[in-house]
Amino acid sequence: MPILCRPAVLVPENTIGMEETLELARRMHADHPQLDLVLQLISNTGVNKRHLVRPLAETLQHPGFEARNAVYAQEAMARIPGVVRPALAAAGDLGPEDIDAIIFVSCTGFLMPSPTAWMINKLGFRNDTRQIPIAQLGCAAGGAAINRAADFCTAYPNANVLIVACEFCSLLYQPSDRDVGSLLANGLFGDAVAAAVVRGRGGYGVQLERNCSYLVPDTEDWISYAVKETGFHFRLDKRVPKTMAMLAPALCALAESHGWDAGALDFYIIHAGGPRILDDLRDILGLDPAFFRYSRATLTEHGNIASAVVLDALRRMFEDNVLEHGATGVIAGFGPGITAESCVGTWSSPISQPSDLRTRLTARESAA
Amino acid sequence: MPILCRPAVLVPENTIGMEETLELARRMHADHPQLDLVLQLISNTGVNKRHLVRPLAETLQHPGFEARNAVYAQEAMARIPGVVRPALAAAGDLGPEDIDAIIFVSCTGFLMPSPTAWMINKLGFRNDTRQIPIAQLGCAAGGAAINRAADFCTAYPNANVLIVACEFCSLLYQPSDRDVGSLLANGLFGDAVAAAVVRGRGGYGVQLERNCSYLVPDTEDWISYAVKETGFHFRLDKRVPKTMAMLAPALCALAESHGWDAGALDFYIIHAGGPRILDDLRDILGLDPAFFRYSRATLTEHGNIASAVVLDALRRMFEDNVLEHGATGVIAGFGPGITAESCVGTWSSPISQPSDLRTRLTARESAA
Repeated sequence: MPILCRPAVLVPENTIGMEETLELARRMHADHPQLDLVLQLISNTGVNKRHLVRPLAETLQHPGFEARNAVYAQEAMARIPGVVRPALAAAGDLGPEDIDAIIFVSCTGFLMPSPTAWMINKLGFRNDTRQIPIAQLGCAAGGAAINRAADFCTAYPNANVLIVACEFCSLLYQPSDRDVGSLLANGLFGDAVAAAVVRGRGGYGVQLERNCSYLVPDTEDWISYAVKETGFHFRLDKRVPKTMAMLAPALCALAESHGWDAGALDFYIIHAGGPRILDDLRDILGLDPAFFRYSRATLTEHGNIASAVVLDALRRMFEDNVLEHGATGVIAGFGPGITAESCVGTWSSPISQPSDLRTRLTARESAA
Repeated sequence: MPILCRPAVLVPENTIGMEETLELARRMHADHPQLDLVLQLISNTGVNKRHLVRPLAETLQHPGFEARNAVYAQEAMARIPGVVRPALAAAGDLGPEDIDAIIFVSCTGFLMPSPTAWMINKLGFRNDTRQIPIAQLGCAAGGAAINRAADFCTAYPNANVLIVACEFCSLLYQPSDRDVGSLLANGLFGDAVAAAVVRGRGGYGVQLERNCSYLVPDTEDWISYAVKETGFHFRLDKRVPKTMAMLAPALCALAESHGWDAGALDFYIIHAGGPRILDDLRDILGLDPAFFRYSRATLTEHGNIASAVVLDALRRMFEDNVLEHGATGVIAGFGPGITAESCVGTWSSPISQPSDLRTRLTARESAA
């Protein structure tokens, strides 16, 4: 069964803190009729720090869509190798030649060919590596990448799939957008690159056992891009923070279809789109807030890094290293659609490989 | 084993013929230093007619990226249902509720959420339908969609995957681009929507048995988009028409890995990017030109309709209905990267279902 190995995550060297974000909002939007609301919403995010691919002064300029997209390309190529190498190493010292498919998720720039072609040419991947670039699932693409990688390894049990999430949200800053949703987004999103390998056989990490997708009916325009001469304009509806009530039943149904209770799992890797998502899921499932500490830490330290959130929360869980072999959990990405891409699985520790577990379980069943 | 069922294809009602294309080029680029070459290249395409989502006069205007992309969205939603319904019907009277994943391929507009969300909301697909939107594989996405659908059905043998290719190449017309490659592209590409179902079990059509991807080394900038304030600018290098020599070995290797000779198959569904692709493959494999009649007819009657080419060529093969059950063949899409997405499989006729064939083969093996 597919195993999601330890992710590697890098955040850029430029940073902006909460106080600086608030001060900027006060200064740039002093005349905004809803400034107080905006400041309150930004404060509520709990995002202490975000990382930016370019210095703040440059980020606040809009050099045009063409120049922005060129920065995206340049920064992607500069930063992706830094997560690909450790992700391969963490998957049991794999080399690029061991990878059969690359799922590249990124919604903050647009390149054709996809960066997967560049990766094959420059980073040593085989020329027959499948390229699966996904640009239109936004923040949900982190979960989607994990799920499609699991599907691929289910089809080809000897395969290894590399996931790369490349999100430079700061390159979507649009100075002319002054609605409350845009100003909140300006204080919420951050930049990061992340990578992880899903192995069809071997490795350790999260054994991916079942996945599902769920679209909340008639919410297409709640999270969307307006595509303009100035590039992608992120549109955030004020109803979005409350979507957990609509998404939680799908999560519960997924767990139930696997014979599990969504409120009684051992780990929760949830897309931290904002604080309300985590608070509401905690309340709905009746959980201790500590269950969301990895997702919360990602939000606090990096902001919403789009499709990279779930990979960064997973990285923290791997580093924390407190799960016991066989621990059960869920991984869920949320994004435009509104779409949830979720999966359930078990923790497979390096000491006891899942094949051992299967052997034991089979023995137990035989004995029963 | 996955079966690719009969595709449905629709071309828009507005058309432009070869003579009109040439006359336009003569009139609009009378002062172009390489006008004779451009006219010769367009003539050589053999494209007699192309279809356009908007009337020609409107197509020749550039109303800005935002307005263009809005037309893309509007036309996509108006035309997609017209191919989805017959594609579902052709797959054995499936309904939208029978579909487990939608692979949406389109490189001529950009929407987030992807039109898959709209399809689920408006066309009756289940809310747990997997959404797999791919925008960055260009013309190769037709082959990629077939291959990823086959992979999905390999992972989930009871699944059905709907492929939708939505290509409005005319919405990428850039009046300011006057290099030879752009002017050739202006005379080569056309608009179409196409859909087809890949069934994990049941149905008839092409049984998808093995697939592969191949990236030609260091050709990233041969086919690409320049992303600008005015939208996507298609860039076509003059070396592209000669790429078949670089792609054919991958096709031959795929056939060989399946125990077949690429020069001795019964059908060839090849992305008709241009006439040279088909001519060269004919020469390399030593085949009669008649083997490429479906691909050639698509090129002649519709132009290069990007990711929809292979689906339209397949539609013609289904309509021709001359293959015998068990006939062997290849489907190949080519596009930016330069990437080839190819698969080999056998024709499974409605009279003799593949399950029958398998039973017979098993019986034969047992008897041997």
